[in-house]
Amino acid sequence: MVKRNAFIIGTGITGFGENYEISAGKLASQALTRAIENSKITKESIQSTFIGSLVSGSNSQASIGANCLRESNLKTPYVRIEAGNASGAAAFHQAYLGLLSGIYDCLAVVGIEKLSDFVNVGIVERILSSTIDYQWEFEMGATLTSLYAILTKAHMREFKTTLEQLAKVPVKNHKNGVNNPIAQFRKEISIDRFLKAKRIADPIGKFDPATYCDGSAAVILASEEFILQNKDINSKVPILGSSYASDNLALHHRDSLTELYATKTAAATAYKMANIKPENINVAEVHDSYPIGEILAIEDLGFFEKGEGGRAVEEGLTDQNGQVSINTSGGLKARGDPFGATGIAQIIEITEQLRGEAGKRQIDSINYGLTQNVMGTGALTYVNILGEEEVKK
Amino acid sequence: MVKRNAFIIGTGITGFGENYEISAGKLASQALTRAIENSKITKESIQSTFIGSLVSGSNSQASIGANCLRESNLKTPYVRIEAGNASGAAAFHQAYLGLLSGIYDCLAVVGIEKLSDFVNVGIVERILSSTIDYQWEFEMGATLTSLYAILTKAHMREFKTTLEQLAKVPVKNHKNGVNNPIAQFRKEISIDRFLKAKRIADPIGKFDPATYCDGSAAVILASEEFILQNKDINSKVPILGSSYASDNLALHHRDSLTELYATKTAAATAYKMANIKPENINVAEVHDSYPIGEILAIEDLGFFEKGEGGRAVEEGLTDQNGQVSINTSGGLKARGDPFGATGIAQIIEITEQLRGEAGKRQIDSINYGLTQNVMGTGALTYVNILGEEEVKK
Repeated sequence: MVKRNAFIIGTGITGFGENYEISAGKLASQALTRAIENSKITKESIQSTFIGSLVSGSNSQASIGANCLRESNLKTPYVRIEAGNASGAAAFHQAYLGLLSGIYDCLAVVGIEKLSDFVNVGIVERILSSTIDYQWEFEMGATLTSLYAILTKAHMREFKTTLEQLAKVPVKNHKNGVNNPIAQFRKEISIDRFLKAKRIADPIGKFDPATYCDGSAAVILASEEFILQNKDINSKVPILGSSYASDNLALHHRDSLTELYATKTAAATAYKMANIKPENINVAEVHDSYPIGEILAIEDLGFFEKGEGGRAVEEGLTDQNGQVSINTSGGLKARGDPFGATGIAQIIEITEQLRGEAGKRQIDSINYGLTQNVMGTGALTYVNILGEEEVKK
Repeated sequence: MVKRNAFIIGTGITGFGENYEISAGKLASQALTRAIENSKITKESIQSTFIGSLVSGSNSQASIGANCLRESNLKTPYVRIEAGNASGAAAFHQAYLGLLSGIYDCLAVVGIEKLSDFVNVGIVERILSSTIDYQWEFEMGATLTSLYAILTKAHMREFKTTLEQLAKVPVKNHKNGVNNPIAQFRKEISIDRFLKAKRIADPIGKFDPATYCDGSAAVILASEEFILQNKDINSKVPILGSSYASDNLALHHRDSLTELYATKTAAATAYKMANIKPENINVAEVHDSYPIGEILAIEDLGFFEKGEGGRAVEEGLTDQNGQVSINTSGGLKARGDPFGATGIAQIIEITEQLRGEAGKRQIDSINYGLTQNVMGTGALTYVNILGEEEVKK
């Protein structure tokens, strides 16, 4: 029983890619400052800042928020939220709870990762591997990529999903990414390039995984009461549903390899909160860290029947202005994946779509958008549903 | 405007100290399992678990919750909350917001740190230093202890606080700790031992700092509605106030060295939420990582006038059944300090006092208790106020 409403009133994002020049705190501050400007509030209105970060917060400075806030010349408190590579969405959900609690009326959420700080070879790969089961998978020699290869094979075997269908996922996302000014890769890649690439963990080829990078993304959340009292705010996108769910960490402990139980469970709750059905969603940002990730997502979120995901992508049903536009931002694949920032970047893309501010990525007709952010191979999934923009006055 | 109430219905804690035998996940699971048993609910009732951890969650397994829940044979989702050495209280506050949001009715909070995992010399000291300003303090050669020495000197200079008064803090806490079965050190230490100890950062002697260790502590929180529907629950301790506040990270950026602005601010909000005054508090667990920490706390929380803290301790006003009983558990000093677990251990001590279950540590008369958990030298402070136990039926 949710008694209050929560709205996104501003967004800010940095370029995604390699950024050796500035500190994690400064990078996060850039996104936060832009979000504050975009929301048309004074920075002193922010009561607390929720920082989503997998690893930047463990690097030299505890509670990375301290750095971010100092760089932003803000004295408000902060807390870091970590949920593997779903840390961004996790921070968003916690801030959402803060607003609904009635204790806070204006909160900032900042996703940040500065992975170029980790210059030693293999460190980031080691960090990524912390999102799989250390005891049962990592210590036995598995990696995130080798486990996604298992998920890919299972889907190919059970549903005759083809390599061509899988390759269409990054092909589409790179095409979308061309129009995203903050994306790490703004160029198309041909399907042949994917198909002819050397395999790194069969059937996953070397161009298939999304690439990690530096980046930060921030949103400002506010209550209805706060918005009514701050007349300069000219955009409010309601958060209609926000939920998360978990599954066993290790693949071999799960009931199925061809669906993500956590995605299905979190989505069911989010749809119920929003009181809508999957077919009401016009645009979604999903966790395409590997091609199979997007295919599992569009099935488990209920956009297509189980096993039909590959065909849906092949037939263009997930292209911009298709049956449901998936990853208009370019997704993790083309936008780049700064872990903690990714979940917030997804929310910003949907917010811009709902505001009609997505430029060449804008879809023609929109009522509802959804985000799906996944930890590891699906041990945790966060799902958020945003609705039509309501402009005051 | 807080519309719903939140209650502590169960507690669980492990022994604090060195524990090389079991993993962080297993240790956290022990505390969680005991809290579930203590609350008389089925474990399936828990909708989500909030893990407070400074560093154990960064060690090999992202979102340490995954390990804890697997060991507990639970499939509920989890999120890790990090706020330096105030991570335990931070996780508690986030779970509290979750309950007030109306979305959750039964949540677990687990504080965990397994510092004996970090066997390399200097690693834990390095972790501790991450709670001070990396750029302006750590890189210049400061440590947490050297900065607390500055805070101690400032108080001695301005208020004539003496080394004898300072030493009475750990003397009292070690005396209290004798009666705490989970404490790392259950023995008294004479005041002479403190006074004659070699100085490690003048005026701080070698026995003054609290020691880090392994440990886990858990509480179960529930809404009024949930409690009404679960007849086996026989104890509910209401959370009357919960707040946090921040200050500049570096000491030289602060306005004062003789008070913690973050403590004063967080306490003011918590007292307002609870609608009580400092003099209503009968027992408090405060962050005595160094003796000056406890003296600053009892002043900044409003128990004694600024500058009177040293005298209050000397005169026994903070002893068990004094004007206000401080750190009846033994505090960080005698109980030991497993960073993320400390904030929850403080809450458990106050809960046991309110339940009348504190054994030899029990104070004679109690209406309200308070906890104060600090990050670093006071950049962040969390304050919680708990009230009289209400037994159902």
